[in-house]
Amino acid sequence: MKIDSVDFFYLSMPQVTTEADGSQDALLVRVSGGGLSGFGECEAAPLPSIAAFSCPMSHGACRPVAASVLGRRVDSPADIAAIAADVAYYSMDLLQAPHTWSGIEMALWDLLGRARGEPVWKLLGHAQAHPKTPYASLLFGDTPQQTLERGRDALRRGFRAAKFGWGPIGQGTASQDAEHFFAAREALGPDGILLVDVGQVFDEDVARAAERLGALEEAGAVWLEEPFHAHALQAYGELSRQCRNLRLAGGEGAHNAAMAMHLLDYGGVGFLQIDCGRVGGIGPARRLAELAAARGVTYVNHTFTSHLALSASIQPYAGLADHTICEYPAAPKALAVELTRNHLTPGADGLVRLPDSPGLGMEIDPQAVRRYQVDVEIRVGGRLVHATPAW
Amino acid sequence: MKIDSVDFFYLSMPQVTTEADGSQDALLVRVSGGGLSGFGECEAAPLPSIAAFSCPMSHGACRPVAASVLGRRVDSPADIAAIAADVAYYSMDLLQAPHTWSGIEMALWDLLGRARGEPVWKLLGHAQAHPKTPYASLLFGDTPQQTLERGRDALRRGFRAAKFGWGPIGQGTASQDAEHFFAAREALGPDGILLVDVGQVFDEDVARAAERLGALEEAGAVWLEEPFHAHALQAYGELSRQCRNLRLAGGEGAHNAAMAMHLLDYGGVGFLQIDCGRVGGIGPARRLAELAAARGVTYVNHTFTSHLALSASIQPYAGLADHTICEYPAAPKALAVELTRNHLTPGADGLVRLPDSPGLGMEIDPQAVRRYQVDVEIRVGGRLVHATPAW
Repeated sequence: MKIDSVDFFYLSMPQVTTEADGSQDALLVRVSGGGLSGFGECEAAPLPSIAAFSCPMSHGACRPVAASVLGRRVDSPADIAAIAADVAYYSMDLLQAPHTWSGIEMALWDLLGRARGEPVWKLLGHAQAHPKTPYASLLFGDTPQQTLERGRDALRRGFRAAKFGWGPIGQGTASQDAEHFFAAREALGPDGILLVDVGQVFDEDVARAAERLGALEEAGAVWLEEPFHAHALQAYGELSRQCRNLRLAGGEGAHNAAMAMHLLDYGGVGFLQIDCGRVGGIGPARRLAELAAARGVTYVNHTFTSHLALSASIQPYAGLADHTICEYPAAPKALAVELTRNHLTPGADGLVRLPDSPGLGMEIDPQAVRRYQVDVEIRVGGRLVHATPAW
Repeated sequence: MKIDSVDFFYLSMPQVTTEADGSQDALLVRVSGGGLSGFGECEAAPLPSIAAFSCPMSHGACRPVAASVLGRRVDSPADIAAIAADVAYYSMDLLQAPHTWSGIEMALWDLLGRARGEPVWKLLGHAQAHPKTPYASLLFGDTPQQTLERGRDALRRGFRAAKFGWGPIGQGTASQDAEHFFAAREALGPDGILLVDVGQVFDEDVARAAERLGALEEAGAVWLEEPFHAHALQAYGELSRQCRNLRLAGGEGAHNAAMAMHLLDYGGVGFLQIDCGRVGGIGPARRLAELAAARGVTYVNHTFTSHLALSASIQPYAGLADHTICEYPAAPKALAVELTRNHLTPGADGLVRLPDSPGLGMEIDPQAVRRYQVDVEIRVGGRLVHATPAW
């Protein structure tokens, strides 16, 4: 089928705050062709991503994303990969392009799956979709007691895995941090899966991060996420060589597969966290899952928005039975909840399963789109290059 | 002084073609404060860069660039670095932000220099600004004879260094390519500085690139630029270990200092090419020049637009006497020529010198701005977030 149109729906909560909650707005992408529509979602910054689709060309290696997408035929996964290669080459100097393209790419997989009547994970070559263990994403408390209570609450809500993040970690002494790690372990019990995310707090300071390793190992943390900024490959490499059972985790910021691979090649991470809404969509995520598995590295999705994005982000590693941990937006904003009519709700066993229905298996609620839609109009040289699409 | 306003002027040639010529449009940035104005230029894709400045916040780590800039005080280089750190942190999930910020950062140095009555290279701690040897950027001809003629023409125009790029290289056999390398050397004579740029044509294929090394060494090429895509660090590393006198060159795509350093740490490049309009501006470029020099790597500017951008791109390594090669836009479009009233024209000795005048030392021509200005209007939720500024 031919790609007839690509529409961007900018959705937002009435009020967006400075909290680090990525579910406060969304850029929903609808790709239409062959009488069908597929849906995807770009990660963050709707306006620049819309602009990267519709902007005038700057030169041959800085064309808008639209130039490589509109009018193209999509009849197989190879067609999606061919468009991806064109976007990478012809939009080489357009920095925002990978975020824009990621949402379109998801929508193309959804469209192709609907056209063929098959779930995306089958199109990706997975024999089956294994259930995943969702983890609750929590913030460390201001005190170890608060951390303990938050962990116990997650357990009561049925989670067997919890990630504690940010909060006071790295702000005080290593022994103050250790009390939080032990409180988190106490909350989850000996069998709970404990994950720790310190939100780049150590920048590039390996020594300060290393001071925390002993307590993290003793508390049985499975991973330490983003000790350093996303490009600090040397620091990642040095710290990873000091780990015993603990492994480093990172990768959410990668906006192409090569950047993610650097964290394996040079950073020594043991968990590769990929955001399908940034890395270029489902295709590169699938290849990364395979490459990670071949290297003994565990693949994990990074998802902080709707269940459309959640479904897209689990598809790439659905068939990897041993890669069981899954990020699960534990308390998203109403927009992200209401965007889809169906949800990937954990089963009685606490596990999350992908739908067997065609494409990404998620049904968009047009009422929710209308409810949260933000009007966008962009004129360049008197020409309307973007207007709010009709549903 | 306080940053009162940041204005973006989107300039474009009446017609933009698919040729790989970055001087077909420009995003001029004017920063005003303390009754003065400074100017900078963002590299490529004006519309997404404008959107990244003015977009609504998505969440705490995805704020518009404006949020970290407007109203801030700038009285010293440290103030510029502090704003840069805020942009990096608070716009972490806004991919386009570094390109937007780069033009603002240049303008802040220009502003600070004008306020202090000092050229930027002095503010950067350079004792003097050494002249640079400009190289002419040429395309390989369709035939070796054409390559020869183009090289001779550059010599006649006074260039002692020439970079031949793209064209048929990598499309045919290694021995066909060799004929071009030898023709280029013949044109430049034994003392001419020969540089070769193959525009990522080998993607990640080290073996195909390595087949060309012998002829490049024999032709006395100083560098081989971008044999692989910008993130192929492994391939860069493998190829660099096979070089004798030739060195690899790369880095123009880096949108932060860490990415550029990876090409040294893992890619083994001998020439680091930095575009101030992408890497975050003059400050990070200055640090990279120092780091490169300490590692025996030669710093080179990457510039393909106006002489405002050219001045900004030479400032970071002005004081490094041994880092002499300088990219010089040899045949820019009228827009890029007319944008500034003065130009960094090579002297009788063929060398390019930075102005001693305050800031970046370039004078913008308001008539040229009006002549090429493109009207841009962006409305989000009925609110005008960007309108074409008045001069």
